[in-house]
Formats: sequence, C-alpha cells, structure tokens
Amino acid sequence: MAEVVHMIDSEVFLAFSTYATIVVLKMMLMSFLTSYFRLTKQAFSNLEDTTLVKTTEDRKRLVRVDPDVERVRRCHLNDLENIVPFVVIGLLYALTGPDLSTALLHFRVFVGSRFVHTVAYVMALPQPTRGLTFGVGLFTTFSMAYRVLTTALFL
Amino acid sequence: MAEVVHMIDSEVFLAFSTYATIVVLKMMLMSFLTSYFRLTKQAFSNLEDTTLVKTTEDRKRLVRVDPDVERVRRCHLNDLENIVPFVVIGLLYALTGPDLSTALLHFRVFVGSRFVHTVAYVMALPQPTRGLTFGVGLFTTFSMAYRVLTTALFL
Amino acid sequence: MAEVVHMIDSEVFLAFSTYATIVVLKMMLMSFLTSYFRLTKQAFSNLEDTTLVKTTEDRKRLVRVDPDVERVRRCHLNDLENIVPFVVIGLLYALTGPDLSTALLHFRVFVGSRFVHTVAYVMALPQPTRGLTFGVGLFTTFSMAYRVLTTALFL
Repeated sequence: MAEVVHMIDSEVFLAFSTYATIVVLKMMLMSFLTSYFRLTKQAFSNLEDTTLVKTTEDRKRLVRVDPDVERVRRCHLNDLENIVPFVVIGLLYALTGPDLSTALLHFRVFVGSRFVHTVAYVMALPQPTRGLTFGVGLFTTFSMAYRVLTTALFL
Repeated sequence: MAEVVHMIDSEVFLAFSTYATIVVLKMMLMSFLTSYFRLTKQAFSNLEDTTLVKTTEDRKRLVRVDPDVERVRRCHLNDLENIVPFVVIGLLYALTGPDLSTALLHFRVFVGSRFVHTVAYVMALPQPTRGLTFGVGLFTTFSMAYRVLTTALFL
Repeated sequence: MAEVVHMIDSEVFLAFSTYATIVVLKMMLMSFLTSYFRLTKQAFSNLEDTTLVKTTEDRKRLVRVDPDVERVRRCHLNDLENIVPFVVIGLLYALTGPDLSTALLHFRVFVGSRFVHTVAYVMALPQPTRGLTFGVGLFTTFSMAYRVLTTALFL
C-alpha cells in the first residue's frame, strides 16, 4: 500500500467507482420493487400509506403482511448485508493497488452474482441457484478482504 | 476524474465529510428513539431486556411487538436503505470534482429530505409527505450517480 | 484536514483498513450463523429453501419463524446499524490525521465492543452486558464524528 495515493487516480479506482455505483443503484431499485408489490398486492405497513390506493373506511384491512412483499424485502435486506461489505472492502482493496484484470474479475463476478441473486430470489427459482449466487458474492468479497489484510495489516 | 487526488483536499470533500457525518449521526439517533419507545411502551424483542423495566414473574409478557416501536424500526431500516447509497455514491461523486455549489445543493437537499422523512414517518404525517421526501432523497442520489457514471465509467 | 492526501498513505489509514475489514468480516459471519440456525432448527423464510433439508410433502411446515434464528437476525441487523456508521465516520476520521495512538484506541475499542456484543446477543447474556457493549461502540463512533465535524466542518 506504499503508493496508494497514486492509486486513487488509477483505472482500478475508476472500475471500482463504476461497479460500486451500479450495484448500489441495483440495491436502490429494490425500494421501487417493494412499492410496486405493495401497490399491486394492496399490502401496506402504515395506515397513512393506504390512502395511496383507497380513501374509504376499510383502509385498515390494507395494513397487512403479504408474502410477495416480504420476499422482496428480504431480498433488499440481503443486498444490504452483502453489498455494504463489498463496497467497504472493495474500496480498501482498490487502494492496495491490485492488477487491473484481477480487480475487474472481482468486481464483475460480484456485481453479476448479485443481479442473478435478485432474479433468483424474487422469482423464487429452485435452490441452490440463490444459495450459489450468494456464496459466489461472499467468496469474492472474502478474496478482496484477504488481499487488504495481507497488504495493509496494521493492528 | 483526472485530478482526483487533489480533490480529496477540496472544499467539496470537506462538505461531503460534514453532511455525511451529520446524516449518519441522524441515522444512529434512530437507535435511541427505538430504545425510548421500547422502554415507554414496555415492548421488547429479547427476554433478557425486560429486566431493564421489570424483575417480577410476568416478564415474558413484555416480549411483544408494539406498533409504534415497529414504526421507528421501519424508519431506521429505510434510513439504512437510503443513507448508505448516499454515502457511497456521494463519496465517489465528491471525487469526480463537481462544482462546489452543485455539490452543496445535492448534499443539503439529501440531508434535509431525510430529516423531514424521519419526522413524517415517526409522526405518521399524511401521505404523500413521506413519499415525497423519500423520492427527493432518491432523486438526489441518482443525480450524483449519473455524474459518477458519466465521469468515471470504466467497465 | 489540510494535508489529507498524505494521510491516506499513513499508518492511521492502514490501521483503519485493517480494523474496518475485520469488523465487516465479523458482520458477514452473521450470515453463516443464520444459515446454521436455519438448518439445525429447520426454520426457513422461503419454501424453495426447505429442499435443502427435506424433499417430502410436509415442506411447508418448515417455513416458520424460530426464536433463535430471529435472535441472530436481530444481531445481524444491529451490526448493520452500528458497523456502517463506524466505517463511514471512521474513514473520514482517518483522513483528518489523528494521532496514531488515539486512532488505534478508537478502532480497537469499537471492534472489541462489537465482538463482545455479538457474543452477548447470541448467547442471551443477562443485561446490561449487551447494552453496555452497544453503548461503548456508539460512544466511540460519536467521538470520531466529533473530531470530523470540528476539523472538517463545511456547511
């Protein structure tokens, strides 16, 4: 990590910026997907939200839990649990000055795995599809963490 | 992003540091708000926590779900889902060297929208107040992501 | 924050990289712990996941909520709510050029508190063990935020 300052300006850092932004945008789209399911399934968490689809008396019935909405919410939470570590460790990894091709491989595999993970989760594809994509993403992040710890260890 | 190294030392980066810290602190305050509601509503998630308000036999009854506590928790989760993308994309955006006034506009609008969002959520203000503040924050982050991707795209 | 560029190359930044990576890896291990409890307790969120332990007809019964699984999931969410602020504010703090010993103290106390917090949560140790470790971590992050805001304030 001796020449880290120069690294921020590097192609690796540009690649990290690109892939981190793309995968974070993907995560943000889960909010829209949740809203879409809440509106079409008419299942809300808050009484005040029900006015978006109904104004009559029986609005209270719409404050309910829907399995499809919960599925999307679990997928969103899983994104948070996995994409946040990728972004943090990926940023530090990019600063350790890895080979561009190795870095690109990590970023592409991770981001690809999370897109497939979302499709597998929302469409309830048979296991182990989702489990595998989850594992691939995790492994990619572990691999970057290994480089960070072996390059920058300072306890 | 050619002169990015100089950017870290810039006023834009200082502004990002300030607003990111403020909005993350706001998010952390949700933990206190949850604790406050758990204690006043006497509604806990864990049996061991009930000793904080009661030591007698009927502690098990206090392990229950309270609508006001759940509202605060949803607000906290919504913060995580939106403030994390802002911090990640905002950091990369600050490194692309935007105009100070444009950057300040993005940071201020986002942070302001999340404060109003929290008030709207916790006090259950009529929609579309909360929906609008949510959308404004999302739009601000998308706008910064657009600049990151058009400035730093490297696939 | 005047000489921040040099700081990225500093021992403080290396220390931040190390501790941030360790505590994020700890957070990621919660996913494995959740999977472990889901498999041993046979309690799943998705019908398609039940094929991992059973292939017969009564798979639907395994889509259920288990108290031990939920405990681990709350611990994981609490990690997200606290480790994300540490990483964001800790990164900005590292860039303000603090003393190495002060910075190490903050990083070590925070990371230590989160490890003890996880043990206290998963093993349901009597309060206020978990509450204290939670508070210590929060206080450490606030202390770093104070330095960021007093060093880099730009509104």
